[in-house]
Amino acid sequence: MDLIEEIKKRSSHVDKGIEEYLPIDKPYELYKAARYLPDAGGKRLRPATVILAAEAVGSDLETVLPAAVAVELVHNFTLVHDDIMDRDDIRRGMPAVHVKWGEAGAILAGDTLYSKAFEILTHASGEPERILKCIDILSKACRDICEGQWMDVEFEDRNDVTKEEYLEMIEKKTGVLYAASMQIGAILGGSSEEVSDAFYEFGRLIGIAFQIYDDVIDMTTPEEILGKVRGSDLMEGKKTLIAIHALNKGVELRIFGKGEATTEEINEAVQQLEDAGSIGYVRDLALNYIAKGKELLNIVDDSESKTILLAVADYMITRSY
Amino acid sequence: MDLIEEIKKRSSHVDKGIEEYLPIDKPYELYKAARYLPDAGGKRLRPATVILAAEAVGSDLETVLPAAVAVELVHNFTLVHDDIMDRDDIRRGMPAVHVKWGEAGAILAGDTLYSKAFEILTHASGEPERILKCIDILSKACRDICEGQWMDVEFEDRNDVTKEEYLEMIEKKTGVLYAASMQIGAILGGSSEEVSDAFYEFGRLIGIAFQIYDDVIDMTTPEEILGKVRGSDLMEGKKTLIAIHALNKGVELRIFGKGEATTEEINEAVQQLEDAGSIGYVRDLALNYIAKGKELLNIVDDSESKTILLAVADYMITRSY
Repeated sequence: MDLIEEIKKRSSHVDKGIEEYLPIDKPYELYKAARYLPDAGGKRLRPATVILAAEAVGSDLETVLPAAVAVELVHNFTLVHDDIMDRDDIRRGMPAVHVKWGEAGAILAGDTLYSKAFEILTHASGEPERILKCIDILSKACRDICEGQWMDVEFEDRNDVTKEEYLEMIEKKTGVLYAASMQIGAILGGSSEEVSDAFYEFGRLIGIAFQIYDDVIDMTTPEEILGKVRGSDLMEGKKTLIAIHALNKGVELRIFGKGEATTEEINEAVQQLEDAGSIGYVRDLALNYIAKGKELLNIVDDSESKTILLAVADYMITRSY
Repeated sequence: MDLIEEIKKRSSHVDKGIEEYLPIDKPYELYKAARYLPDAGGKRLRPATVILAAEAVGSDLETVLPAAVAVELVHNFTLVHDDIMDRDDIRRGMPAVHVKWGEAGAILAGDTLYSKAFEILTHASGEPERILKCIDILSKACRDICEGQWMDVEFEDRNDVTKEEYLEMIEKKTGVLYAASMQIGAILGGSSEEVSDAFYEFGRLIGIAFQIYDDVIDMTTPEEILGKVRGSDLMEGKKTLIAIHALNKGVELRIFGKGEATTEEINEAVQQLEDAGSIGYVRDLALNYIAKGKELLNIVDDSESKTILLAVADYMITRSY
């Protein structure tokens, strides 16, 4: 089974769904700004998991395609607004929305994506009770994302962020949308509450693992594969879980928050983190989340889609960038 | 019947509803930022019309209170984001949200209000089909508001805005949320589709009238009542319907877009607009929208709530500020 191939099979329908459900209407520039990021691609992992969850409970792609598109638009909405807040001018290798259309344009493009996501989800096929439940889950996920982003911004000015706070932040920023994707796919796919709750938890765990494994990748992947300097999190002084673990152990990292460092200095810092067990600790934690998540899928019978979902979980902690 | 008193009777429940449905939770500063504007008051006209529409079709306040709160939160969400875009630093006599919490804080506070509005509406009481229909209406209204705001920003750089374009812009910026409020109140109140559609149209018409009458007020209300210099729209070069009418008639307004003017110059400009029939034209148009709107309410039996709704319509074009 080729995971990338299986994701692509489904994401090509998501691409078409975006064109169909979010047509470029008047005022054209607003909709061009709204479509800019969704059209630029991305892995489409979240909408793919909506579809895979539905398939794993015996439903199909057609039934949940609107919901998959809605989730992808919500994801893009958060990227557009986050880039304004974080002053990130490049996204997916292109100028960010606020660079091309100005800040006002980007705020409105984000709000339009958000509105459209709910509009599309409202028109999903299925029993009204199930659709309502999905809207509830998605709106709550959006609120969690706002809370997570707020915490992330707040953490920048703090030196006492705990492991628990960090995990809560990334659960909200990343975990809940994977969780909501899986749960929505299962619910609209017709599953019982017990099954859809298990899918939520599966998504939550692999979403958290995805995010903390990012910190490991930043330390361990060579520059030629990573596409940016290794250890940039350290130089920027980011309070990642690795940094929190090391600081708690009293490790003194000379390059932490210094903005730049030589290759030797980076190698030295990474070695310090390996010696303190900080990188291993976070890697093990990510592995643990994935193992726990995968166990939860025992609740459904074996199927091709289940195999792919298990591979998605493994992908979270085996990818090198 | 004392209109202000009748609105207050209902808005006091909306105040309590906001506290109940949008509690100040962790992270506290995010929720304080989100609650800041709703707590600062405002007329609460929109939620009051949700309630009045429900009453006029035979339902009651309790049934539609969550929906009324949802509409008020959506209204506040648009204010928070609009103030960032328009660089308006004062709102309701206080520093705007982006002044107190920074731009990132205001973007997130707005997004939180928006998410919460849908979450609350999802939990409204009523048949799931009716709630879904209301979510559809509200999400479409939000998208219209984005389109209207986009047009408004775009119009600033154009000198060829037509009457039709202006009316479409204010219909979207202001009309649709009144329309949605009335329709949602009627739907959750249990009305037929014919009745709820009439309420939508009633709200749309009085919402447009409200906005174009604002332009008249800016010209005709003395500074001591208006709370700002009369004719400020002219000095700012705003393409209001009055200005569009006058420019089309070839009237040359010396102070248009000049940023400042003496009292004599303002009086002279207003006189020019009166002579050209521009102010009368817009006043008549507003009156016409209100008359058409009121006729639509013939679809329901007379009741106290209907009388109040008719008074709300008249208020739109009799208020002096």
